[in-house]
Amino acid sequence: MRTRAAVALEAGKPLEVMDVNLEGPKAGEVMIEIKATGICHTDEFTRSGADPEGIFPAILGHEGAGIVVEVGEGVRSLKVGDHVIPLYTPECRECASCLSGKTNLCTKIRATQGQGLMPDGTTRFSMLDGTPIYHYMGCSTFANHTVLPEIAVAKVRDDAPFDKICYIGCGVTTGIGAVINTAKVEIGAKAVVFGLGGIGLNVVQGLRLAGADMIIGIDLNNDRKEMAERFGMTHFVNPKEIDGNIVQHIVEMTKTPFDQIGGADYSFDATGSTKVMRDALECTHRGWGVSVVIGVAAAGAEISTRPFQLVTGRVWKGTAFGGARGRTDVPKIVDWYMDGKIEIDPMITHTMPLEEINKGFDLMHHGESIRSVVLY
Amino acid sequence: MRTRAAVALEAGKPLEVMDVNLEGPKAGEVMIEIKATGICHTDEFTRSGADPEGIFPAILGHEGAGIVVEVGEGVRSLKVGDHVIPLYTPECRECASCLSGKTNLCTKIRATQGQGLMPDGTTRFSMLDGTPIYHYMGCSTFANHTVLPEIAVAKVRDDAPFDKICYIGCGVTTGIGAVINTAKVEIGAKAVVFGLGGIGLNVVQGLRLAGADMIIGIDLNNDRKEMAERFGMTHFVNPKEIDGNIVQHIVEMTKTPFDQIGGADYSFDATGSTKVMRDALECTHRGWGVSVVIGVAAAGAEISTRPFQLVTGRVWKGTAFGGARGRTDVPKIVDWYMDGKIEIDPMITHTMPLEEINKGFDLMHHGESIRSVVLY
Repeated sequence: MRTRAAVALEAGKPLEVMDVNLEGPKAGEVMIEIKATGICHTDEFTRSGADPEGIFPAILGHEGAGIVVEVGEGVRSLKVGDHVIPLYTPECRECASCLSGKTNLCTKIRATQGQGLMPDGTTRFSMLDGTPIYHYMGCSTFANHTVLPEIAVAKVRDDAPFDKICYIGCGVTTGIGAVINTAKVEIGAKAVVFGLGGIGLNVVQGLRLAGADMIIGIDLNNDRKEMAERFGMTHFVNPKEIDGNIVQHIVEMTKTPFDQIGGADYSFDATGSTKVMRDALECTHRGWGVSVVIGVAAAGAEISTRPFQLVTGRVWKGTAFGGARGRTDVPKIVDWYMDGKIEIDPMITHTMPLEEINKGFDLMHHGESIRSVVLY
Repeated sequence: MRTRAAVALEAGKPLEVMDVNLEGPKAGEVMIEIKATGICHTDEFTRSGADPEGIFPAILGHEGAGIVVEVGEGVRSLKVGDHVIPLYTPECRECASCLSGKTNLCTKIRATQGQGLMPDGTTRFSMLDGTPIYHYMGCSTFANHTVLPEIAVAKVRDDAPFDKICYIGCGVTTGIGAVINTAKVEIGAKAVVFGLGGIGLNVVQGLRLAGADMIIGIDLNNDRKEMAERFGMTHFVNPKEIDGNIVQHIVEMTKTPFDQIGGADYSFDATGSTKVMRDALECTHRGWGVSVVIGVAAAGAEISTRPFQLVTGRVWKGTAFGGARGRTDVPKIVDWYMDGKIEIDPMITHTMPLEEINKGFDLMHHGESIRSVVLY
């Protein structure tokens, strides 16, 4: 069949919206009609050419929601008409990683997914002249229809709006999951969030959900303050507007009459800057501070610190897709949204048709959007 | 009173054994007659001048065992005649750190201890001409008698031999504690220990105690293999004798037919090399590997890695005194030794009188000793 897609023909160029060929699902695969998709910084990381593993031509997009329109042979957990969210982190429930109970990083189809291919080593997309088009993060939600392995699809409730829950396919789950799955923040904690963009705001609301006492947001842009407060931020710091360094500033903010050591119980980097990642670690509390890296750093960039920071009790960790097991946890997060436990609507600042998808990238570049969503 | 001590008069010089003045315990303090003390790399780090925070003249030594000979006003938990181990990490049980339940890094007397002083800001030791001599790590076990705060003294059973349990004052507890308190290794785990010196051997026996399946020891010196096997090592690797890099080698060793990702569940750096610390992190398993820094790095040295290592699920942490709460946990470790759950005797390779303490440092430099113990 043919479908409409925004294709990344080569690195650094705007996407081109065109008709493409799409083969139907093979065994263990399903075809999804995408109804909405967010535009994430990771798409831009690859589009721009900054991603050393980027492959072209490709159909980007990994933050979608839609409806199953066809199922391949042997598919048992999904049927035509199911409302679903594609998963760039699958959950096969039978590999060593899934069965470890310690990680969400299913490895069942990792090798082919990293090469822009379906598990059988081929692509379902092609140009009208027959040239193969690579898949992206196993999702390719910048196409009106796409094919995914059954294990990379989360079935969600039918009454949830596609134009909002698509964001659960990446940003919402990453931010909230970093708090509840990776850091396991407890009620009463003091936490710091570096970067109040789309991921950072979701970390903030994850901290509110977890019952944190102090939710300190850090951003160079004062315009981010109001929105972050809406999601639960209790204190805002603009590093450009303080005397001294941000680490010492946070240590001072978190001291109490009883605890004169100071430092955050938890910190989160949602910037991708390796310099900020170091600050995030070092501003945590001696003895028990936990710092979680969420942001994607530039290719080749390294984090560093004195080992003394770890020896004195700080823990450095990271999170991918918020530590969430996609098929198990994503439907729960959709429920939380529908029940009002978390908010998404204010973060979807712009919507547009597929034909105008490049406008979404422009808005991201100019810092004008939190999340742009393409509506099919 | 006068006592006999080995004094570090200045950085880089051998210790000088001499008579020194020792004031009796003030309120909340006790005087201990040291019966035996180990010589640890940390003493050498300071003696040599490598420690940027080293203060001279000082009485080094922090790995001792002895008997309480005098108690100051208000001391309730100790009495004359108690057998004890001095603690460089105290346990006040009332500061924010102790009460957090999350760390052993009591902060009650941290400021003065770091300055070589008792909590009241003075020293108990002085030269015969009256010049103050600084305390070291709050212990100064290279003196036949020393004074410590009550909160920095662990009471242990009377039947345990001083010349062995002194080692529990640092090396044994650090190595075993890194496994059971910091990493919390579970039965069946695969673990790697970098460096098979005194700390590394104790990590090895901690792993045996914890029921690890694979205990891989890494050392550049093949002579370490036999002793490490005695303590439970199951596999030995000399990085000089393999093709390719040690990280990939360990990943291959830990693969199974079911788990083709490979990597250690836990790793421990007991070398102090920041390069090794990186290898130790990166050889752990994608998704859940935990790497613990134990070694003390050179002043100013930094650890680094790509943040991708953390984002894909590896955790970097560190340990000080094995995460052990001194007054609570040290007596238990003494019991484990007396019950035969852990071994110490083979690690005490050399003993000497205080007059020959510099010989112990020489043995350490030449890699001939695991632990030298001074007997008073």
